[in-house]
Amino acid sequence: MDEARLPMTRDPRLTQRDVEQFHSAALEMADEARRIITPALEGRFRVDTKLDRSLVTDIDRAVERRLREMIERWFPDHGVIGEEEAPLRPESPYQWIIDPVDGTEELVHGIPTFGTMLALQHEADVVVGVIDHSALDVRVNAAIGIGAYRNGRRLQLEDMPMPLDGKAVVMTARLNFVRHVDEGPIFDTLTRTYPNHRIFRAAYAHTAVVSGAADVMVDAHNHVWDVAASQILIEEAGGVYSIVRDFSAPGGRLLTVVFGRPSIVAAVTEVFDQLDRARP
Amino acid sequence: MDEARLPMTRDPRLTQRDVEQFHSAALEMADEARRIITPALEGRFRVDTKLDRSLVTDIDRAVERRLREMIERWFPDHGVIGEEEAPLRPESPYQWIIDPVDGTEELVHGIPTFGTMLALQHEADVVVGVIDHSALDVRVNAAIGIGAYRNGRRLQLEDMPMPLDGKAVVMTARLNFVRHVDEGPIFDTLTRTYPNHRIFRAAYAHTAVVSGAADVMVDAHNHVWDVAASQILIEEAGGVYSIVRDFSAPGGRLLTVVFGRPSIVAAVTEVFDQLDRARP
Repeated sequence: MDEARLPMTRDPRLTQRDVEQFHSAALEMADEARRIITPALEGRFRVDTKLDRSLVTDIDRAVERRLREMIERWFPDHGVIGEEEAPLRPESPYQWIIDPVDGTEELVHGIPTFGTMLALQHEADVVVGVIDHSALDVRVNAAIGIGAYRNGRRLQLEDMPMPLDGKAVVMTARLNFVRHVDEGPIFDTLTRTYPNHRIFRAAYAHTAVVSGAADVMVDAHNHVWDVAASQILIEEAGGVYSIVRDFSAPGGRLLTVVFGRPSIVAAVTEVFDQLDRARP
Repeated sequence: MDEARLPMTRDPRLTQRDVEQFHSAALEMADEARRIITPALEGRFRVDTKLDRSLVTDIDRAVERRLREMIERWFPDHGVIGEEEAPLRPESPYQWIIDPVDGTEELVHGIPTFGTMLALQHEADVVVGVIDHSALDVRVNAAIGIGAYRNGRRLQLEDMPMPLDGKAVVMTARLNFVRHVDEGPIFDTLTRTYPNHRIFRAAYAHTAVVSGAADVMVDAHNHVWDVAASQILIEEAGGVYSIVRDFSAPGGRLLTVVFGRPSIVAAVTEVFDQLDRARP
């Protein structure tokens, strides 16, 4: 495996040993998140509505706080971008990107598709990604040059159609497509072009595509902590990841990303391109 | 609980004791389905494409066969309507309605939202309903006059908005809305009116609404075995169930049903009514 020993990112100072260490740390963080979430689901927890009308619980806050403590202890010079607290050390070349609970609405209502999302970005590259589903006992994790895994089993997507009634496209709800900038017509075109779509909401949508259970994910107008982990997850699984929108919005940067099997990602990004060209 | 002793259906010959017996039988059938499905998921199974392009596996067939055997043994005068085999004793006043695996695509791809759906219809009334999710360890079950339960805990929906960013509407994919009769515009109107929708596909969509995790389900152009159980489940949980379309199609009867919390069911059925009135 000589290739795996080559520098894998644009910065040759980042060695495979570093990557392995960061990957192990991310897995321990996911274990710790699960240790907080699983017992908390059994008891009572407090639910608040944030300024943007989304929900937050004690659980979200406790997980983010604990993960920040772990990063502070292990990597005191790394930065942190998390959903529930302010950015820390934004000047660091290493940024941990945390969504302690993606799908808080789902968690609150006992729908098991929520998950903890973790990514480590180094300069321009996402080098580690984890999505952990406490309630489903499902985890996908990946690190650059090391591969992508679902519950420990190596993932390798094939770029071929699945034996389904049409392509299985996973999307965010129309709510996302009209957030900040109204791109509702893109939702309408995609649902007409790919009528066998699913909208799981929350992190499970990403996991389904990363693990080959669906063909492509279209995640519209979402925050960096909702989409960062999936970049390395899908790339290490043999798929592709395309950022098709990048807005600067009042509540922070919003991205639209398309990722999955290469041929279907190309077809879906073409829908965005066509609509762009048709604009006055 | 004197009220529970009153005749609960239009046929006074159906006693509470009968209902309890049918309910217990349905729960045993769901247990048996799980005993077939759970180990089968670990191994290899055969996947075929049916004439209507939908999928069927060995597992679907084995479950339906086994449930039919149980019905034959316990209730030899009852009829059976199942997805994978021809109707049996269609003249009987009792009809067991079986979808051995609703969401075969999901089962094939390891997405845990599939489920076994069972209903017993007596004359015009659905009197027992069960949806069982082997992979999620979640079951909802109900019988007329006996209540609705999720994993043994009584369900009681409140007709109030959830603390969500808009109403949580669960729908079938656009594929369903254009099946047999093109009602795509209804999908488009619903997704614009209720942008915070989810499309889980498969039985879990029903379970989410029956157990109050979402507000309303719109199941478009589907077969009787996809929608029968949910009628008694939602009614016993305190919600309402409305059949808004009933087509006679080449592959059999197709129904569109709307069910959930009463106020939101009224609002969604009004969308259908408005579009009907606007038609030339």
